[in-house]
Amino acid sequence: MARADYPQPVVELITELKRLPGIGPRGAERVAVWLLQSAKANPEELSESLLAAKNQVRSCGLCGFFATDEGCSICDDSGRDPQTLCVVEQATDVLPLERSGAFSGFYHCLGGKLSPLDHIGPEELRIAPLLQRVEKLPGVEVILALGADVEGEATANYLAEALAARDCKITRIAQGLPAGGGLDHADDLTLLRAMQGRR
Amino acid sequence: MARADYPQPVVELITELKRLPGIGPRGAERVAVWLLQSAKANPEELSESLLAAKNQVRSCGLCGFFATDEGCSICDDSGRDPQTLCVVEQATDVLPLERSGAFSGFYHCLGGKLSPLDHIGPEELRIAPLLQRVEKLPGVEVILALGADVEGEATANYLAEALAARDCKITRIAQGLPAGGGLDHADDLTLLRAMQGRR
Repeated sequence: MARADYPQPVVELITELKRLPGIGPRGAERVAVWLLQSAKANPEELSESLLAAKNQVRSCGLCGFFATDEGCSICDDSGRDPQTLCVVEQATDVLPLERSGAFSGFYHCLGGKLSPLDHIGPEELRIAPLLQRVEKLPGVEVILALGADVEGEATANYLAEALAARDCKITRIAQGLPAGGGLDHADDLTLLRAMQGRR
Repeated sequence: MARADYPQPVVELITELKRLPGIGPRGAERVAVWLLQSAKANPEELSESLLAAKNQVRSCGLCGFFATDEGCSICDDSGRDPQTLCVVEQATDVLPLERSGAFSGFYHCLGGKLSPLDHIGPEELRIAPLLQRVEKLPGVEVILALGADVEGEATANYLAEALAARDCKITRIAQGLPAGGGLDHADDLTLLRAMQGRR
């Protein structure tokens, strides 16, 4: 006898699901079986959504956020403040800021952060297009909303220097205690930054 | 201004991914973005695997395990012992047993377990086909490999009674200490069963 396994199409589906981030071998098997057996599952619809998203979604050439052939919902929004430009690392950093309601200007996604160890230098990021954008917006406030890690800091410092000679105001988002966090749970560096940033 | 969100196709993809078991709203967003942005992602291939699995895989009419139009890899395996029939709750219970190498006979998946609270009675399970199968296999050993929970016990007792008058030998898989588990980690019921099952 041969030890039984799932039929080939199921094995292939599990293989594809296993490649997704955050899904391990067990989870992939569970999802595949659910897709095939549950009355609530709709594998055809998932299959169609995948193709639709893949075929219709692209990066906005200006801001780098997700866009479709119909345009970019941010860059095409005339209700936004043209005098503030928020620089973020990734397209995925835009939505948390949007949801917070803290910002109503335009965005510029760099596509990453400077990281010499990973061979990511200024050329690999969308820094040149940022400088061109700032050229065309005299007096704009450029808000550097980058991560509070080493690479984020390095990228912010690099951009501050590159933008220094331009007609723009450079600001950075504050670092300090997270909302709802007590001093007893904050690490030393967070407390140092919170103290330095006092006002 | 309108608060920006992902383009509609991405929102729809996230909605579909969120419905999968074990994937929450954050995980769904992460998977969707990865599928669209990562160089390693291949949404077309995942989309195709979904359709292939959905269209080619069905339940084996005899044992209830996954099968294709080419047949059932278990029921069609002439190298198996026709005198042992292992009864499991779900099709997904078959592979753990196969991988363990502990069994080389045929299977019968019930499609669930008796659960009056969920309105699952004998009619909802593949019990009648099981009785018919046993009729045709005089002297067969029917191994009840059901879960060690209340519903599993109730189902095993029901089957034992239904099969009592038939020409077959009824056995149940043992309950006791899990391999590698010490007595200090076992609960009372497991110890009771282990003691009762001593040999």
